[in-house]
Amino acid sequence: MKKTLLSLAILLAAASAQAQDSLTIRKIYDEALVNGQGYEKLRYLCKKIGPRLSGSANAQKAVEWGEKLMKDYGFDKVFLQEVMVPHWVRGAKEEGYIIDGNKRIPVPIAALGMSVATPKEGITASVIELHSLKELETLGEKAIKGKIVFFNRPFDPRFIETGEAYGTAGDQRFLGPAAAAKYGAVGVIVRSLTESIDDYPHTGGTDYTDGVKKIPGAAISTKAANKLSMMLKLRKFPQAKFYFKQSCQTLPDVKSYNVVGELTGTEHPNTFITVGGHLDSWDLAEGAHDDGTGIVQSAEVLRIFKAIGYRPKNSVRAVFFMNEENGHKGGLKYAELAVKNKEEHIAAIETDEGGFVPRGFSFEDISPDLLKKVNQNWKPLLEPYEADRLVKGGSGTDIGPLKESIPSIMLIGFTPDSQRYFDIHHTPNDVFENVHKRELELGSAAMASLIYLIDQHGLK
Amino acid sequence: MKKTLLSLAILLAAASAQAQDSLTIRKIYDEALVNGQGYEKLRYLCKKIGPRLSGSANAQKAVEWGEKLMKDYGFDKVFLQEVMVPHWVRGAKEEGYIIDGNKRIPVPIAALGMSVATPKEGITASVIELHSLKELETLGEKAIKGKIVFFNRPFDPRFIETGEAYGTAGDQRFLGPAAAAKYGAVGVIVRSLTESIDDYPHTGGTDYTDGVKKIPGAAISTKAANKLSMMLKLRKFPQAKFYFKQSCQTLPDVKSYNVVGELTGTEHPNTFITVGGHLDSWDLAEGAHDDGTGIVQSAEVLRIFKAIGYRPKNSVRAVFFMNEENGHKGGLKYAELAVKNKEEHIAAIETDEGGFVPRGFSFEDISPDLLKKVNQNWKPLLEPYEADRLVKGGSGTDIGPLKESIPSIMLIGFTPDSQRYFDIHHTPNDVFENVHKRELELGSAAMASLIYLIDQHGLK
Repeated sequence: MKKTLLSLAILLAAASAQAQDSLTIRKIYDEALVNGQGYEKLRYLCKKIGPRLSGSANAQKAVEWGEKLMKDYGFDKVFLQEVMVPHWVRGAKEEGYIIDGNKRIPVPIAALGMSVATPKEGITASVIELHSLKELETLGEKAIKGKIVFFNRPFDPRFIETGEAYGTAGDQRFLGPAAAAKYGAVGVIVRSLTESIDDYPHTGGTDYTDGVKKIPGAAISTKAANKLSMMLKLRKFPQAKFYFKQSCQTLPDVKSYNVVGELTGTEHPNTFITVGGHLDSWDLAEGAHDDGTGIVQSAEVLRIFKAIGYRPKNSVRAVFFMNEENGHKGGLKYAELAVKNKEEHIAAIETDEGGFVPRGFSFEDISPDLLKKVNQNWKPLLEPYEADRLVKGGSGTDIGPLKESIPSIMLIGFTPDSQRYFDIHHTPNDVFENVHKRELELGSAAMASLIYLIDQHGLK
Repeated sequence: MKKTLLSLAILLAAASAQAQDSLTIRKIYDEALVNGQGYEKLRYLCKKIGPRLSGSANAQKAVEWGEKLMKDYGFDKVFLQEVMVPHWVRGAKEEGYIIDGNKRIPVPIAALGMSVATPKEGITASVIELHSLKELETLGEKAIKGKIVFFNRPFDPRFIETGEAYGTAGDQRFLGPAAAAKYGAVGVIVRSLTESIDDYPHTGGTDYTDGVKKIPGAAISTKAANKLSMMLKLRKFPQAKFYFKQSCQTLPDVKSYNVVGELTGTEHPNTFITVGGHLDSWDLAEGAHDDGTGIVQSAEVLRIFKAIGYRPKNSVRAVFFMNEENGHKGGLKYAELAVKNKEEHIAAIETDEGGFVPRGFSFEDISPDLLKKVNQNWKPLLEPYEADRLVKGGSGTDIGPLKESIPSIMLIGFTPDSQRYFDIHHTPNDVFENVHKRELELGSAAMASLIYLIDQHGLK
């Protein structure tokens, strides 16, 4: 009998905890949807500051804006973390042409981030179209040497989440120039990493390999890629040539900052739950979805807690990471300081897949048991908000280094709907106008809800 | 032992059926995403035909286009269902002004569908702002008589699905003019049914009550509604007046058609699964999301089946319903003919909530047991495609009448993500450019998958 009563008491306590959680989550959503401030903050970041590549004057403005924003919200602590970041500059507008006999057909082109420049007069060379890095090996130096390699593997439309298509097509951009250089290529052009067929070249970082000659790399628009490919196929001009010129360069590293805001935990002030996005953007873009939305959502999480009077037991931090796009030095610094300062970290959530309508969260390396538990306990609470896809998966570049420093941490990626992200990713079309107010706010609320649950119940 | 073997055999058969279903659904998605044709068909419908209100010449063009489209696809049967539809015309562009002493502040305004005209010289009257139909009763004839009633209850942003906000704010438009007329109002203006704060008046149908005087009704933009409300609050001009003029009229009914395409069932040719949207649109709009997307998605379902070589056991019909917007005579006719022709109907799916990324389906009046079964068996199959929210809920206006005629039918609403729909709903901004190719295609595939499952396994 005693046992039964005890079981009953446990059950009732659990039911009452669920009911309390449900009420708090409703409060979080109401605050986000009725009083959300992220959208107007994002407007300022995009329209008044704008592009903010690491090392630029605008990046510094963004740091100052971010610090002031969090101080104005009255978070318990607001501070900067100093970090040296790369300073790459694009230089003059790039030029690209398909050369068809006497005709020059202009091509929308953008240097890849961290790429070297072409010679001042540009590069003119025959083009060889490839669809994978592996083909370099198959064809060998004889076929590649002296040529411009044109990587033209498109997004595979069959992936439901477009991030997977990006992941599988991405090696062409990430590693293409370094790989092609080994076989004597003089330059690389890459089909833009998007399924959208349009006139935007999508920039983005490329990595050189130590010890290999650095050759220039650029993205061309998908329309131009289709045209070039068609012309190569028609074999009207077997000596198909391409010309491009870019004057980008890497200057000495610059001092910059992560911006950190904190609500200090009432019970465990040295134990942290982090939510963050990146403050830097590519130089071509307002960086609205990438990743202005992540910035304002992270700050909203803390603002919402304050507004509804929720005092977390653990410390909750919003981090505006610097330099995600071309070096992720900010993420590395945050992890380094976490260890140095002997901080405990329960979880970190990254929001860097756009400010689109939430689908859920993906938990890195989560055990099957814990994933089951999370789904049993928390999915029903998030289901009314349509943010209940709780799956095993990746998290993000900025929080990644925390895993190595603090193996017990759970890394979590916020997963908004992915369909529209790569249409605008790393282009001048990534503007404030493409962000939807409610979708943005629903994201802030979803993250605040998950953090609330982690703060209340842990994640083990 | 025998029993165990039998159980094992049943289990294996079930597992193999699941595996087959999983493969077919993957084929459906591949076909939709790699070879989808809906997007280009939609471009034609929006850009070459355009607005197509019932009774208009464009509606007839759309009927002919729809019939040709399905014939070109080579469906087993393609036929028209004749139906008489209302013929309402907007007439000259409406005019609306806030009158502030000698100042006239222009207001974006659009007559409600089926509304009567104002007198030729327009109506000028004092304005009374209300937030519900109930307030009419509270305030009574003395307060209302001779005035223009301004219904200004906004969308409640706390609803997660915007359709619920539309549903709860909607009575102001659907019933406002009829209700206000009973209290002697001379006209009604309604805050546009959207959460978006912008300059578009959102039109849409209103219903008059028999025996009550028909007074003119119009929608004004949300920005104008906010401005007017603010001016009324400031009480700078307690005699605040509003002027509007519209010359809409209802002409005699016109002969029109539903367009029906069919893949005839190999086992049960007289048993049907219907998928449909509506071919008509408001006169102000290209009718891209409302409901061009539903039209092309419905045809895609059948095209995909043909393309992957799936021959349904039951007959599957795509129906382009006529006259959903102002009378739903097409839906009534389809149900009437179903009974007359002694057709069996298993299920009908309506797609009329926009061509946005799929979330799932809502099943009207589904029993808890069947909902549980559907979730157990089919949710795992739809989950990889993120179209797995299978809930009890509403379906749609066009298939609604089938329930009365054939009580055993299951009515199902396709539920895309709802966040962006009412931003553009019933406005000139509902254009092709706001439809996303992949989102559209994912919807076609989700519906084809569900229909495949119903065709294979029934829905009981």
